[in-house]
Amino acid sequence: MQALFARLDEIFEEIVAIRRYLHENPELSFKEVKTAKYIADYHEKLGNKVRTGVGGNGVVAYLKGAHPGPTVALRADFDALPIVEQTDLPFKSKNDGVMHACGHDGHTATLLGLAKALNKLKPELHGTVVFIHQHAEELPPGGALPMIEDGCLDDVDVIFGTHLQAEMPLGEIGYRAGALQAAPDMFNIRIQGRGGHGAYPHQTVDSIAVGSQLINSLNQIVSRKIDPLDSAVLSVTSFVAENPYNVIADHAQMVGTVRTFKEETRKFIEQEMERVIKGICETARASYEFTFTRGYPTLINHKEETEFVAEVAGKIPDVTAVKETEPVMGGEDFSYYLQHVKGTFFFTGAQNPEWEVSYPHHHPKFDIDERALLIAAKILGMATLEYMQVHAKEVQVK
Amino acid sequence: MQALFARLDEIFEEIVAIRRYLHENPELSFKEVKTAKYIADYHEKLGNKVRTGVGGNGVVAYLKGAHPGPTVALRADFDALPIVEQTDLPFKSKNDGVMHACGHDGHTATLLGLAKALNKLKPELHGTVVFIHQHAEELPPGGALPMIEDGCLDDVDVIFGTHLQAEMPLGEIGYRAGALQAAPDMFNIRIQGRGGHGAYPHQTVDSIAVGSQLINSLNQIVSRKIDPLDSAVLSVTSFVAENPYNVIADHAQMVGTVRTFKEETRKFIEQEMERVIKGICETARASYEFTFTRGYPTLINHKEETEFVAEVAGKIPDVTAVKETEPVMGGEDFSYYLQHVKGTFFFTGAQNPEWEVSYPHHHPKFDIDERALLIAAKILGMATLEYMQVHAKEVQVK
Amino acid sequence: MQALFARLDEIFEEIVAIRRYLHENPELSFKEVKTAKYIADYHEKLGNKVRTGVGGNGVVAYLKGAHPGPTVALRADFDALPIVEQTDLPFKSKNDGVMHACGHDGHTATLLGLAKALNKLKPELHGTVVFIHQHAEELPPGGALPMIEDGCLDDVDVIFGTHLQAEMPLGEIGYRAGALQAAPDMFNIRIQGRGGHGAYPHQTVDSIAVGSQLINSLNQIVSRKIDPLDSAVLSVTSFVAENPYNVIADHAQMVGTVRTFKEETRKFIEQEMERVIKGICETARASYEFTFTRGYPTLINHKEETEFVAEVAGKIPDVTAVKETEPVMGGEDFSYYLQHVKGTFFFTGAQNPEWEVSYPHHHPKFDIDERALLIAAKILGMATLEYMQVHAKEVQVK
Amino acid sequence: MQALFARLDEIFEEIVAIRRYLHENPELSFKEVKTAKYIADYHEKLGNKVRTGVGGNGVVAYLKGAHPGPTVALRADFDALPIVEQTDLPFKSKNDGVMHACGHDGHTATLLGLAKALNKLKPELHGTVVFIHQHAEELPPGGALPMIEDGCLDDVDVIFGTHLQAEMPLGEIGYRAGALQAAPDMFNIRIQGRGGHGAYPHQTVDSIAVGSQLINSLNQIVSRKIDPLDSAVLSVTSFVAENPYNVIADHAQMVGTVRTFKEETRKFIEQEMERVIKGICETARASYEFTFTRGYPTLINHKEETEFVAEVAGKIPDVTAVKETEPVMGGEDFSYYLQHVKGTFFFTGAQNPEWEVSYPHHHPKFDIDERALLIAAKILGMATLEYMQVHAKEVQVK
Repeated sequence: MQALFARLDEIFEEIVAIRRYLHENPELSFKEVKTAKYIADYHEKLGNKVRTGVGGNGVVAYLKGAHPGPTVALRADFDALPIVEQTDLPFKSKNDGVMHACGHDGHTATLLGLAKALNKLKPELHGTVVFIHQHAEELPPGGALPMIEDGCLDDVDVIFGTHLQAEMPLGEIGYRAGALQAAPDMFNIRIQGRGGHGAYPHQTVDSIAVGSQLINSLNQIVSRKIDPLDSAVLSVTSFVAENPYNVIADHAQMVGTVRTFKEETRKFIEQEMERVIKGICETARASYEFTFTRGYPTLINHKEETEFVAEVAGKIPDVTAVKETEPVMGGEDFSYYLQHVKGTFFFTGAQNPEWEVSYPHHHPKFDIDERALLIAAKILGMATLEYMQVHAKEVQVK
Repeated sequence: MQALFARLDEIFEEIVAIRRYLHENPELSFKEVKTAKYIADYHEKLGNKVRTGVGGNGVVAYLKGAHPGPTVALRADFDALPIVEQTDLPFKSKNDGVMHACGHDGHTATLLGLAKALNKLKPELHGTVVFIHQHAEELPPGGALPMIEDGCLDDVDVIFGTHLQAEMPLGEIGYRAGALQAAPDMFNIRIQGRGGHGAYPHQTVDSIAVGSQLINSLNQIVSRKIDPLDSAVLSVTSFVAENPYNVIADHAQMVGTVRTFKEETRKFIEQEMERVIKGICETARASYEFTFTRGYPTLINHKEETEFVAEVAGKIPDVTAVKETEPVMGGEDFSYYLQHVKGTFFFTGAQNPEWEVSYPHHHPKFDIDERALLIAAKILGMATLEYMQVHAKEVQVK
Repeated sequence: MQALFARLDEIFEEIVAIRRYLHENPELSFKEVKTAKYIADYHEKLGNKVRTGVGGNGVVAYLKGAHPGPTVALRADFDALPIVEQTDLPFKSKNDGVMHACGHDGHTATLLGLAKALNKLKPELHGTVVFIHQHAEELPPGGALPMIEDGCLDDVDVIFGTHLQAEMPLGEIGYRAGALQAAPDMFNIRIQGRGGHGAYPHQTVDSIAVGSQLINSLNQIVSRKIDPLDSAVLSVTSFVAENPYNVIADHAQMVGTVRTFKEETRKFIEQEMERVIKGICETARASYEFTFTRGYPTLINHKEETEFVAEVAGKIPDVTAVKETEPVMGGEDFSYYLQHVKGTFFFTGAQNPEWEVSYPHHHPKFDIDERALLIAAKILGMATLEYMQVHAKEVQVK
Repeated sequence: MQALFARLDEIFEEIVAIRRYLHENPELSFKEVKTAKYIADYHEKLGNKVRTGVGGNGVVAYLKGAHPGPTVALRADFDALPIVEQTDLPFKSKNDGVMHACGHDGHTATLLGLAKALNKLKPELHGTVVFIHQHAEELPPGGALPMIEDGCLDDVDVIFGTHLQAEMPLGEIGYRAGALQAAPDMFNIRIQGRGGHGAYPHQTVDSIAVGSQLINSLNQIVSRKIDPLDSAVLSVTSFVAENPYNVIADHAQMVGTVRTFKEETRKFIEQEMERVIKGICETARASYEFTFTRGYPTLINHKEETEFVAEVAGKIPDVTAVKETEPVMGGEDFSYYLQHVKGTFFFTGAQNPEWEVSYPHHHPKFDIDERALLIAAKILGMATLEYMQVHAKEVQVK
C-alpha cells in the first residue's frame, strides 16, 4: 500500500494539471471527442492496451498485472454540462457555454493519475485493472449502457466508482448499501396555443399564461399527491417561449426532470403529469405534446462490496470520516454496471473547509477542492489492490 | 378622379406583384436595407426626387405638380416581424424567421402603385406629394421620430396614412377622430434565482417557479387593479429560461407589452408591476431587474381631416361601408406625425369574404385580401387630389 | 320653486333625523318590515294615500295635486346590507351585522322630507306625485320588478331617482343618457373534493387547493379573454371551506358577481366560467356545481328626461357642477322602471370636502355628507314641479 | 392467557354495543362530559377505583391485583371530531356535525371491555392496571399533558396504547421502535385586505384573491423548499371569507396544519411560511396575522417495550401479520406519556377485507371492522399479563 500512496503523492501535481486542462476544455455529452482522444493518448503513453470508440466516445484501458488474479473495473465519466461558467478560476472554461460543473474533470484526472501509479506496480499486480472512461453520464440514455453492450464489462469481476461531492467536507467518505441514487427521468412538454398581437390577448391563446398555470400545478403534485413518507422530485428546468415584445406566444416548450425511488411512484407521477397537462391545456383551448423519457434505473449498491470499500476508506490517512450516507435524488448511470457485476459507488468529500460558500453541483460557480482527487485515487487504488489480494486465490482455483 | 381610378385599375396587377415580392423578401425593423433600396429605385425610375437614409433606412420621394398648391404627405411603413411564416402562399417568406405578418408589404405596394398613377397626373397636380416610406414601425423607438427629425415633414401641410386590417371585411373603412391607438410600452424583467441540480430544488431558487407565480400575478393587475371602465393590456410575450433537463433555472428573462390610453393608468401599471415583481422575487429570495420602456404616444387623429377622409372614402365605388371605429389597443408611430402636422390615420378592411378563418395580425398564418390595396390607393389618391383642390387657393393667397 | 326650497331648508333637520333613525335600524333586503311600517306611517301622518305590501315590503304613497296634470314617480330604496358597521357614528347600527352601507337610508329620508315639503304645495300642484319606496334593491331579483307587477307604475308618466355617491364631491351632480349601470349577475360554485386527514393530502382531493387554482384562473378571464375596449368585472366575493385544523376540506363554496354591459360579453363570461370550473375541477378529480343567476338588466336612461334633469340640477343654488358621468359597473333595479316608463337616474355627490379618506360604497366605514340629502330633495322636487308645469297642458289636451 | 381470551370472546358483543353507543353519542374535544360520565360509571360498576376530572374530562380507573407487581397503564382516547357523518350505519351519530371519525369510540370500548375481562382475573393479577381514559386527543394542546400533570402516570412503570387503522387489513399489527408519528402543528392566518363593492375591484384589496395566491405559494413550500428525502406536510384545511355576492372580501381566515419529524424542518417551515405570507400580503397591500402553534411532540416508541409488544402480538390467534410499519404523518399526544415512562404505541388493523372502498380517518364515511376491537383487547390484555409476570419479581425485590 505504502508504495501506491507514495507514488500517488508524487504525481499529485500532475493529477491537478490534468484536471485543470480538462476543466478548461470541457465538451458536452456525446460530443467529447477531444477529451476521449486525450484520455486514450495518456493510457497509450503509459503502455496500456486501449480500446477507443467503445459504445460511442468511451475509452477502455487495460493494465494486466504480472500475476493472475481477478479483474477489477474502475470507472470515471468525462462529459461536461451546457452551463456558462461564472467562476474566476485561472483555468476557467474556454469553451463558451460548456462547463465541468459536476466534477467529471476531477473523476477523470483521478483515474488517469491512478493508472500511472498502478502502472509502476505492475510486477506485483495479481489480476487486471480495467479503466472505464465513460462518456455522456449527464445526458440519458447515457454512455454506460452502450459501453456495456460494447463489452466494457467483459470478464470484469467487480467495479468501483466514486463521485466528488462539493458539499461534503474534504476528508469525508459516504457509502450506502442498497438504493443510493434515484431514477432520473426526463420530460418534454410543448404547449401549442394561438399566437397574435400583444395588444389583443382575447384573440389569442397565450401559451405563456397557460404554461405558468401549468407549472404552478405541476409544482403541487409532489406536495399534495405523493405520500409525504415517499421521496420524489418534479422540476421544470427549462421554459422557452421567445417572442418579440408585441407578439403573444404561439407555443412554449418545457423540459424537466422527475426523480423517484419506487416504480409505482414513478408511474403515478407520469400519469398525473399527463392528467394535469391535458386538463390545463384543454381548459385554455391549447393543445399539447408530452413525452416522458425514463432515465437511468435506481442505483443499487451491493452490500458486501460496499462494506469492503467503506472499510478500505477507513484506512486511508487523509480520510477523516466514513459515514453511511442518505440516498440522493440525483441519478447515475453507474446503476447499469451494478446490474451486471458486483460493486459499489461511493461519495468523496470535496468541499474546501475554508470556503465561505460552496456551490451545488451544476451551478455556474461550482468548484471542488482538488485534494479530494488524491483521496479518491487512494481509495480506488487501495480497494483494487486489496480486492486482488483477497480474491487472487479464488481465481487461481477456478 | 376618374383618370386616377382608371390608372390605378390598370396597374393593380403590378401593385400585387410588388406586394408579393416584398412579402417574399421581408426584413426586420431597422435592418430593411434591401427593401429601402427597392423603394428608392422604384421612385427613381418614375423620375421622382428621392432622399434615402432618412432617419435610418427611411426613404422620402417627392412628386411636384405642375401647379402651386399644398404639400400632402402619404406614409407607408415597410418593416417585417420576427415570425416564422406558416402560410402556404406561393410567395411565402424566403427569409426564415422573418415575415410580413402585419401588412406593411401591402402598405408599401399601395404607396408605390399610387406614386406611379399620380405621376401620370403631374400636369394637373396643384401642389406636391411627399411619399414617406418609413422603416421600423414595429420596434420602438420606431422610424417615424428620426425621420421627422431628419426633415421628412418639412413644408408638409397634411398627412394621411392607412392600415390594412385582416379582420375587417374588404370594402369597409374605419375612421375615428381623437384617440385611435393606444400607447404601446415595452418591458423587460430578469429574474435572478440560484441555479442548481434538478434533483435538489431545496438548494436552489427556482427562477421558473418564481417566474410562473409572477406571471400569474401580473395577469391579474388589469382585472383586479384597473378601473373596468378604463382600457389596458399587460401581456408577457416572451419567457426564456433555457436549461438542460437536470439543471434548475438560475435566471429567467421576460419581455412584454403594456397598452394604455391614459397617462395615469400608464404610470400606475408601471409602478404596480415593479411592486409585484419586487414582492414576489424578494419573497422567493430571488433578485430582479426591471425596465419599462415607453413606446409611441397615443395616436390622436385631427377632427377636420378625419371627417374629410371619411367623406372621401364614401365616394369610392369599391367602398361598401365607412364606419366610426372603436379605438384599438395596438400602437402606431404615425402618432408622431400627427403631433407635428394635421392629418388622419384610418383602417382599410382586407378580410376576404370567402375565408373561413382569418388570422389576426402578427399571427404566423396572417394574410390579406390584395384587393384592399386598390381601395387604399384610391382613397389616399383621391384624398390627395381633393385636398389639393380645396387648399390650392389658400396657398396661392399665402 | 322658492317656496319648495324654503320649505325643504326648514325641514332639513328632520330629514337628517329620519336618516339617522334609519341608519341606526337597518334591515336586510326582503326583511325590511319595520322600515316599511315607518315609511307608511310617515306618509299616513301627512295624509297621503298609502299602499303597503306592494310586491313584497314595498310602500307606495300618492300625493294628488289640486289641479289635473301628469303623474310623476319618485323612487327611493330602503334596504341595508349584511355588513358589520365599523364607523364611530353616534347613530351606528344597532342591528349587529346589518348596515346602511350604500346610502339607502339617505334616499328614503330625502324622499320622505320631500313628501312633507310638497304636501304644503298641494294647492298649486298640477298632477300627482307617486312616492315609490322600494325594498330589496341590493339583492336580486330585487324589489322593483314585483312592485311594477303589483302596479306601482300604473298611470305614471315619468320616473326620477337618484343615488347618493360617497366618492363624488358634495355639490356635484352626474348624469348620463344611455347605459349608466351594468348588468350585475351572481354566481355560486360548489367544489366537491374528498376530505380526509390533514396529514395525508395524497389520500384526499383538497377542495381549498382546487378552489385557489380556480380563483387564480377566474381572475384572469377579464384580463386575458375580454376585449380590453369592453368593460367587465368578475369578482369571487365569498369562499367558505370551514374545517378543523387537521381535516382537509371535503368541499368549498364560492359566491361572486359578474358585471357587463353587452349581452355577448355576459354570455361569454358565463360559458368561459363553466369551462374553467369544469376543467380545473376535473383535472383535480373534484366535481362541481355551478349556477349563474342573471341580475338586473343594464340601466338605460332616456335621453330627453336625462337632459331635462341635468338642466334642472344646474339651477339649484347648492349645486356646483353638473357633469356627464362615466357609466358605472354597479347594477340597479331602477333599470326595470326605465323599461316601462320614461325617466332618468342620476348621481348626487355626497362626499364631505373635509374628509381625508372617503370609503367606497359597501365598505364597513362608509358614510355620506348629509347635506347631499337636501340637494337631492331639491333636484327631485324641482324636477317634479317643472315637469308638471311643462306637461300639464298636454294632459289637459288629452 | 386462555382465561383472558375466553373472557374477552364472551363479552365481545358487549364491547361492540359500547362502541356503537359511543358512536351514536359523540362529543367534541374538551366537551366530552357525557362520555366521561359513561366511562366512569362503567368502571364504578366493575368496582374499580375511579378518578374523574383528571386534567379536564379525563377519567382514570385502577384495578389492583391480589399480588404485588408492576403498574401497567393502558390508554384509550374518547373525543370525536366536528364532521358531519355521511355513513348509513344504524348507529350513526345523533349529534349533528360531530362524528367518531377516527375510531376513538373503538379504543374506549376496547379498554372498557378489557377492564371487565381483567376484573375477573384479579385474584391472579400481580400488579396494578391503570386505565387512562383520555379526553381531547384530536385538539392540541390535547388531554394527555394535563392528565400527566394531574398525576395519571404516578407510579406507572410502563404504558401501552393502540390505534385502530381503517386502512390496514384486519388481523395485521404494525409496530415501530423510534419515531412513529410526526409533530402535528397548527397555524392560523388572517389576511386583512380592504373590502368594497364587488363591481369595483380596483378600489379594494381583495382578500380572496390574495388568499388564493398565498395558498398556491404555501402549497409549493414542501415540494420546492424541503429536502425530498425528508418528510413534511403543510395543509391549509380551512379558508373562510364569507360575504354577500356583491361585497369584496375585507378579510379572510385560514387554518391548517404542518407535520414534520425533525426540529430543523419544523422551524424552517414556520419561518418560510411567515416569509411567504408577509411577502404576498405586503405585495398586495394587505396586512396579516400569523400564529403557529406547536402541537404534540414526535411520538418516539421505546425499543424494548416495542419489541415486547410485537412479540406478544405474534402469539394472538386472530393476528395474521405483525409488521414493522412506516412512520406516519399524523400526530398523537400519546407522545407525552412516552416522554415520562417507557412504553409503546402500535397500530391494529381494522379494515374489513370485504369492503370495496375504505375511507381514510377523518372522512365523513369512515368506518372500522369491529372485530379489530377484540384483537386490540387481546394484545393489550396479554401484554399487561405477560409484563406483570416478567416484572413481578423485580418489584418484589425493590
